[in-house]
Amino acid sequence: MAEHLSQSELDYPFKLLEYFNGFRISKAIFSACELGLFDLLLQSQKPMNAVEVAQKLCTSEDGIERLLDVLVAIEIVDVEVVQGTAFYSSTDVANLYLAKTSPKSLHDLIIYNSQTIYPLWNNLVDAVREGKNQNEKTFGLPSEEIFSAIYRSEEEMLKFMGLMNSTWVIDGHDIVTAFDLSGFKTVIDLGGCSGALARELAKEYPSSTVTVLDLPAVVQTAQRHFAQQDDTICFQEGDFFEGEIPPADLYILARIIHDWKEDKNLKLLKKIRTACHPGGGVLITEALLFENRRGPTMVQMFSLNMLVQTEGKEHPPSHYTRLLTEAGFRDVQVCRTGKSYDAILALK
Amino acid sequence: MAEHLSQSELDYPFKLLEYFNGFRISKAIFSACELGLFDLLLQSQKPMNAVEVAQKLCTSEDGIERLLDVLVAIEIVDVEVVQGTAFYSSTDVANLYLAKTSPKSLHDLIIYNSQTIYPLWNNLVDAVREGKNQNEKTFGLPSEEIFSAIYRSEEEMLKFMGLMNSTWVIDGHDIVTAFDLSGFKTVIDLGGCSGALARELAKEYPSSTVTVLDLPAVVQTAQRHFAQQDDTICFQEGDFFEGEIPPADLYILARIIHDWKEDKNLKLLKKIRTACHPGGGVLITEALLFENRRGPTMVQMFSLNMLVQTEGKEHPPSHYTRLLTEAGFRDVQVCRTGKSYDAILALK
Repeated sequence: MAEHLSQSELDYPFKLLEYFNGFRISKAIFSACELGLFDLLLQSQKPMNAVEVAQKLCTSEDGIERLLDVLVAIEIVDVEVVQGTAFYSSTDVANLYLAKTSPKSLHDLIIYNSQTIYPLWNNLVDAVREGKNQNEKTFGLPSEEIFSAIYRSEEEMLKFMGLMNSTWVIDGHDIVTAFDLSGFKTVIDLGGCSGALARELAKEYPSSTVTVLDLPAVVQTAQRHFAQQDDTICFQEGDFFEGEIPPADLYILARIIHDWKEDKNLKLLKKIRTACHPGGGVLITEALLFENRRGPTMVQMFSLNMLVQTEGKEHPPSHYTRLLTEAGFRDVQVCRTGKSYDAILALK
Repeated sequence: MAEHLSQSELDYPFKLLEYFNGFRISKAIFSACELGLFDLLLQSQKPMNAVEVAQKLCTSEDGIERLLDVLVAIEIVDVEVVQGTAFYSSTDVANLYLAKTSPKSLHDLIIYNSQTIYPLWNNLVDAVREGKNQNEKTFGLPSEEIFSAIYRSEEEMLKFMGLMNSTWVIDGHDIVTAFDLSGFKTVIDLGGCSGALARELAKEYPSSTVTVLDLPAVVQTAQRHFAQQDDTICFQEGDFFEGEIPPADLYILARIIHDWKEDKNLKLLKKIRTACHPGGGVLITEALLFENRRGPTMVQMFSLNMLVQTEGKEHPPSHYTRLLTEAGFRDVQVCRTGKSYDAILALK
């Protein structure tokens, strides 16, 4: 996804300056989301001027006008100037992905990036120096227990679960259709969080029974905040590292492996293989690096993000193949979806 | 400079996700600069592996390897894998703009963005709500006196002067050649900071006398840290708001107007016109907005930046024409350079 830095960059560093400006573009979109701008523009029956927007959102007129103009420049908001006054309206992209009420909303992903990850990245220099996450310096939380940091309050747990939920709302369908999983009748999503990926799976394979197994507090929060009427999935409280793993045909590990060090992951995969029914398997979902280290940019960024926030990292396919083989699985298949997350299937 | 958000974005929000990732790309480049990575790679006679880089920079191997791989993905660093080990080398673009020792180095601009502006932007929501800068919330400094905040310590003053210096090293030549200024024999750069723009002017017009007028502390720091052998410019201590403005043929106001409110700017321009020799003029240098509010993206961002950090903003050409005319200047000419900063010339 990187754009090539061409020779003309040597005459004037346009692309570099754009990279330097990246944090401002991120924060402008994030802040508009936090202020509820996209919801207001979606609900409004007609284009609004900055004075009206400021009144509705309780902001300064000058501040919201500049923010609106930035969003116009990057084509997330549209503008029409009538007799010297600018009237702003939303775009299809903003309505679909940035308004909180849209079924494909990335609102929660944005809030987490803005309020938790952005400040963590202010300590990237120290993360690289020390080779460890910056939960302590950023939030005063112990760096060893990463999920104690991530789940440090009910509010933070909810934010993190929202982040996960957002991802599977846009990537889930590609993941569950990367392979034909119809043969697996009982499926357990280990660390399945809000249940968004499990629901995608249950929808695609209605004859399968899909269970989310997660920590008690996570399951309770999921049922309070993310439950759906006539929910197609079940929840089960447990700890797949410390406790038992129930038998099933297929286990899902979605964005679990990348949080932890190799020995812990290997132990987990062996434990899963033991619990797994004969003929069953495991589906790993992660963002995959290229073997040649040259990208994708987004995944390299995710890997650096794991350094800042967890004890894990992102890997190329060969790493997962080796790990799964070492844990006793066979027939490892890798599917790159072309979206943010990829899928790896292995059989017992 | 914005890329069009196409209809295909509705299928999958690739561009939006790239925008959300912007802060990570910025911070990755900034952090590599802060760690001295580009200087090390420039000085190295041969490509280096992550272990060697980590030793030289006193960082973790794992951390620096992930950072290097991110820089490879965005083509700022190059990699070659030899028998399973990655060897990293610099690119022409990094050597020219990111290594500290390069005459075109943007190192100081990066340090300021990383250490001062990035944390300020974490309070963008409050800046938009309150319509004022976030020096108080971010650094505990009073929001009213913006240069007391910017110059709060000798270290911060030096960082800010480095930022200004970096800009004129890459944009200065375009600014001083935007118009033929050879007719102006005495030139005063009001708030000329490190003197970088003044030096570009003196180089282009060797028969002109160029003086930088700035606050005593700034002049002293400029002479200690930015003076050059056989310097072609003079420095004069003063305060162009509170004190006298000496007579001259041409006054430069480079990135001054955008810091302040309109009444203060108008008063300043009238004062300059009074001091100005007959036939003289004023050259304003700012990043110019389009009249239609649709960009340039970078300038819209600068304007939002001014909200977060100062009491001013960026404007379209019509604003400067009106302001200069109101102050009594005539023959206003606007030149867009196509780079970051533009030029406006007006005569007494």
